[in-house]
Amino acid sequence: MANKWDDKNVTISDLQKIVMDFVRKRDWEQFHSPKNLSMAIGSEVGELMAHFRWTNSKDEENTAKECKNNLEIAHEVADIMMLLLEFTKVTEIDIAQAVKRKLEINEIRYPVDEFKGKNHKYTKKQ
Amino acid sequence: MANKWDDKNVTISDLQKIVMDFVRKRDWEQFHSPKNLSMAIGSEVGELMAHFRWTNSKDEENTAKECKNNLEIAHEVADIMMLLLEFTKVTEIDIAQAVKRKLEINEIRYPVDEFKGKNHKYTKKQ
Amino acid sequence: MANKWDDKNVTISDLQKIVMDFVRKRDWEQFHSPKNLSMAIGSEVGELMAHFRWTNSKDEENTAKECKNNLEIAHEVADIMMLLLEFTKVTEIDIAQAVKRKLEINEIRYPVDEFKGKNHKYTKKQ
Amino acid sequence: MANKWDDKNVTISDLQKIVMDFVRKRDWEQFHSPKNLSMAIGSEVGELMAHFRWTNSKDEENTAKECKNNLEIAHEVADIMMLLLEFTKVTEIDIAQAVKRKLEINEIRYPVDEFKGKNHKYTKKQ
Repeated sequence: MANKWDDKNVTISDLQKIVMDFVRKRDWEQFHSPKNLSMAIGSEVGELMAHFRWTNSKDEENTAKECKNNLEIAHEVADIMMLLLEFTKVTEIDIAQAVKRKLEINEIRYPVDEFKGKNHKYTKKQ
Repeated sequence: MANKWDDKNVTISDLQKIVMDFVRKRDWEQFHSPKNLSMAIGSEVGELMAHFRWTNSKDEENTAKECKNNLEIAHEVADIMMLLLEFTKVTEIDIAQAVKRKLEINEIRYPVDEFKGKNHKYTKKQ
Repeated sequence: MANKWDDKNVTISDLQKIVMDFVRKRDWEQFHSPKNLSMAIGSEVGELMAHFRWTNSKDEENTAKECKNNLEIAHEVADIMMLLLEFTKVTEIDIAQAVKRKLEINEIRYPVDEFKGKNHKYTKKQ
Repeated sequence: MANKWDDKNVTISDLQKIVMDFVRKRDWEQFHSPKNLSMAIGSEVGELMAHFRWTNSKDEENTAKECKNNLEIAHEVADIMMLLLEFTKVTEIDIAQAVKRKLEINEIRYPVDEFKGKNHKYTKKQ
């Protein structure tokens, strides 16, 4: 278990456990199919995007600082993370391994020589 | 650092580090504002949802098993995780702390007595 | 112009005009780039999906009737439509022609003989 | 019926009819619940947003022109429109009336005097 509860100390499984405890205590797993969970993530990302939709380039400098202190944004990040942890629990996907594999694929797809500093325009990455 | 690279051993910071190394080597941070990252998460979740959109109740039993072996779904989960890790790096949000705080709020908002086994109908939770 | 203002009488251009009048009177076009508009549509669809995310098959029979009388759902549909009309105005896309062309492509891609009654599983249609 | 098939001549009902004919010929209505349709719109908007996610302010001037000639973007707009038309058919929402009512609400919520030229920051509009 973690000493201090922060990103440096908490494993993905640690975080997943407190989420699943919450869900199970309420007997909510019956409603939380992979389909429903993916839809919930879609809703929460919609909420997150709502913070940025009308900003333009003049605003961009301040945006990162504003986000840092914006509790609503932290809540939306938390929601997305919790739903993703539940999704991967139900579908038995190991997030750390999935990320590592995807980065290996991306290393080949986006060689540094070719893509450094470039706005990699694409519509569908994979 | 992790012994075995999996959810049991990898911390959120460990995972964030390999993502940020990838991005920085390619000098892509300039394109990755919080706004753009949130939009990218929206796109990736769209990809994830596409796997489930026409399924109906007859399919639901098999869905979790199917997801487990579906490489595309694992890729989309990885994409969402990587973008979220970058978003929280740029906005200096600690995911573990954000999730813990959100669960504390939800403990109060959804007391077990009242919400156990209930399909909590709501349009916007927070 | 339409006699009665409803779907039977109102053309896409009629509807687009009242939306653009609203936007222009407020001098909001400067914030409404194609990027921002697509992001706003993403947010609004997130709102729409939130109504359905935890429903399961037992609920499906009643859902269509419930939607009919749900003002919030009508508002979200309106928001999505208005943003789409603005997006197509800015990008000079004719919606009627775009839909006709896409259906022609889909006629060939999904021949009736082969696809009738089938849950056409796919991740990306086009 | 429309003389020329374009936004100036085609009513919302005209467009809805050709979409519903396509769906019914394939006996697909059984899969197209309001929930599934909202999820499909979410997926398609994800596709649309993917075109813009890494663009920054230097690109914005060209974006509207690029969109105009981009067939993929026209296809995604068509998909969103078709799904929205089906959603409103199933839920018996009249789009023209819904938009008119929403604009009436917005006229009051965003008086011209107060909101002209202002980037109306908000997370949840309604």
